[in-house]
Amino acid sequence: MKDKIYVLGGAQTDFERNWSKEGKGVIALLREVIDDGLKNINLDYYDIIKLNNQGRVACFVGNFIGEYYINQGHLGALLTEVHPAFYGVPSARYEAACASGSVALDAAMTKIRANDYDLVLVIGWELMKTVDSKLCGDYLGRAALYDEEAAGIDYPFPNLFGRLADETIKKYQLEEERYLQNLAKVSTKNYKNAKKNPNAQTKKWFMNEEQASLRGTVTNSLIGGKLGISDCSQVTDGAAFVALASEKLINEYYGRDNFPIVKGWGHRVAPMRFDTKMQDSAGSKYLLPWTRQAVVDAYNKANMTIHDIDFFETHDCFTSSEYAAISAFGITEPGSEYDAIESGLTDSNGDKPINPSGGLIGCGHPVGATGVRMFLDLYKQVTGKAVGYQLNKADNGMMLNIGGSATTNYVFIVGNE
Amino acid sequence: MKDKIYVLGGAQTDFERNWSKEGKGVIALLREVIDDGLKNINLDYYDIIKLNNQGRVACFVGNFIGEYYINQGHLGALLTEVHPAFYGVPSARYEAACASGSVALDAAMTKIRANDYDLVLVIGWELMKTVDSKLCGDYLGRAALYDEEAAGIDYPFPNLFGRLADETIKKYQLEEERYLQNLAKVSTKNYKNAKKNPNAQTKKWFMNEEQASLRGTVTNSLIGGKLGISDCSQVTDGAAFVALASEKLINEYYGRDNFPIVKGWGHRVAPMRFDTKMQDSAGSKYLLPWTRQAVVDAYNKANMTIHDIDFFETHDCFTSSEYAAISAFGITEPGSEYDAIESGLTDSNGDKPINPSGGLIGCGHPVGATGVRMFLDLYKQVTGKAVGYQLNKADNGMMLNIGGSATTNYVFIVGNE
Repeated sequence: MKDKIYVLGGAQTDFERNWSKEGKGVIALLREVIDDGLKNINLDYYDIIKLNNQGRVACFVGNFIGEYYINQGHLGALLTEVHPAFYGVPSARYEAACASGSVALDAAMTKIRANDYDLVLVIGWELMKTVDSKLCGDYLGRAALYDEEAAGIDYPFPNLFGRLADETIKKYQLEEERYLQNLAKVSTKNYKNAKKNPNAQTKKWFMNEEQASLRGTVTNSLIGGKLGISDCSQVTDGAAFVALASEKLINEYYGRDNFPIVKGWGHRVAPMRFDTKMQDSAGSKYLLPWTRQAVVDAYNKANMTIHDIDFFETHDCFTSSEYAAISAFGITEPGSEYDAIESGLTDSNGDKPINPSGGLIGCGHPVGATGVRMFLDLYKQVTGKAVGYQLNKADNGMMLNIGGSATTNYVFIVGNE
Repeated sequence: MKDKIYVLGGAQTDFERNWSKEGKGVIALLREVIDDGLKNINLDYYDIIKLNNQGRVACFVGNFIGEYYINQGHLGALLTEVHPAFYGVPSARYEAACASGSVALDAAMTKIRANDYDLVLVIGWELMKTVDSKLCGDYLGRAALYDEEAAGIDYPFPNLFGRLADETIKKYQLEEERYLQNLAKVSTKNYKNAKKNPNAQTKKWFMNEEQASLRGTVTNSLIGGKLGISDCSQVTDGAAFVALASEKLINEYYGRDNFPIVKGWGHRVAPMRFDTKMQDSAGSKYLLPWTRQAVVDAYNKANMTIHDIDFFETHDCFTSSEYAAISAFGITEPGSEYDAIESGLTDSNGDKPINPSGGLIGCGHPVGATGVRMFLDLYKQVTGKAVGYQLNKADNGMMLNIGGSATTNYVFIVGNE
């Protein structure tokens, strides 16, 4: 891409925290992540005020459904409750279910490329622990076609991604036991990776391959089709913050240009309804062809291939979605994803690590925050700042953030110049 | 602005319609407005498919709170239920309460300027008549700081804009009776204008200045502070569609370049809480200085002044907001808005017509659609297509779309080259 978007850095809250139990609300959450983020990029609120007086800064908020979890909409403007520095700063909220953070990132980086602002602050967040898990599942059902796919169903998304597992087995004529064992390996890897990530939700939780395989037992009950609790990301509170800047701003404020840049992106939206998605993909070798297309678009924009990507952060809302992402990324041909898993290729010490952060299953999945958290993890890895879970080789990373049942697909490539 | 954004046209549903009573839902609403809009710009669904195969088209959806009204989120992806042509087309939803349509417009036009897409389709919509007006008011309360400003209050926004009326009287030491009479004139004008707009909600409703002045009576009850029902926009179902294009696309598809263009824009967000907003503006001669700043930003980007603008579409969610907009636009000094109203300057046959469409009070206010509807009305006027309510002189128009209690402020200028 010809217009450079520099990634200054950011911050993430500890996804282990339950803000409701702490007696803290959204303003505390946002204040904390923005305070940390500004500190990490060596800016303060006075810089925001100064840049705003010059009309050079704006904020982009990713959130799925704060309207339900905390009874609040108009979520861009909510930043004015966090700090007076945001008075007058352009802001808005961006939504595509669990890919909301990526919509905010996309809008923000486009503003840099159009020379509208020199600094854009992207904040993704969700407070989900304000309600019990059943109600939480119903709220999330509004990311699917609610009346048809979610209303009256206890856990609509585990159900849909359980069906994705069934369809994967069917399309590629996989041996069910081997496939499920592969999903257990995905889950185990992501829990294991999370143990090294100080901000991961599950860093103190127990998981091993035996436990992940014992689906349908008391400690790993079935939650959607063949999928167990171990295949599933958990309800999470959290926020992530990323700052992007123009070349002008980094020259002016930092006097150096060795920041990572955004090298490519892709955005494709598949049919919303799961059944339609499957009908639409019947003639494709990919189960999720639009997911693949978003990846291809990002490679093309970056003029890169799979060989240039050192690691991946992907949307493992369920193990079945990470499984499908392996071929979408081009790591294997579709139908041969098990090769990458069984050979250890996607482990953190493999050649194509996936989710060194722990991903959604290990690190956590505060839905509106996830895209921004993934993007921040690309930044951390390529700058050697992924303390505890740093990869050996990490010059270029790709992320895939999805909304709904792989309906919205957003891909970004971040790397060093 | 150096990068040209061409306005191809669009469509609006008849805001008089109650889609729930017709037994129709959101898919029917969207299908109808998109069908009409594509026809009006001489494109069809095959063009969308073709452009999408080339990665040149995307959709931007403005909606405030479909999560409540129709139990549905992920509102960009919902377009795939409207027509298979949208399979694979990038789409997302954009939100800033009643300014949601403008967030979508802004993101869409920025994509054109960054050369990401050549055609962007912007669809604003809200179906509000799925619930009764009291519940509707509570839902809308999520555009304010809900816990502090809306929870447990019957009609939070009439209350907040009633307070805006009180603050206007106080700040400019106005005679209350005269001010309220001015608001009655605003209301009467907008109802009158709406009678000529075939898509207006109130085209068959009765209103005159006497009726608008008799607040606190059976037929015009008080709804928020000193404001009566006649000062208030009504619950509306509706959608609006606008298509924007790059220079490349219009050359390729239309072989002419005499489309209107976007000449300027402004986006500023004031403190969310009404009390804070008033404290923040205490030192300013404007009651809503960030609203004014958004207007100034748009003038500066367009290299224009008030003298270059022939007409305005503004956010008269309440008469008190249109009153405040008069000085924000620069039509009068702040505190002298009554001059413009009493002299007839803002009537459709005046020199600075405001809301020739009827505005939110006359035309209707399906909240997520409003910004897009205003923008479409700018297009219609500058191209001579505002059948029934066409102004004599309309080369350049400005719109102001606000979210919350004048929290989010979006301004666009559309005009002929």
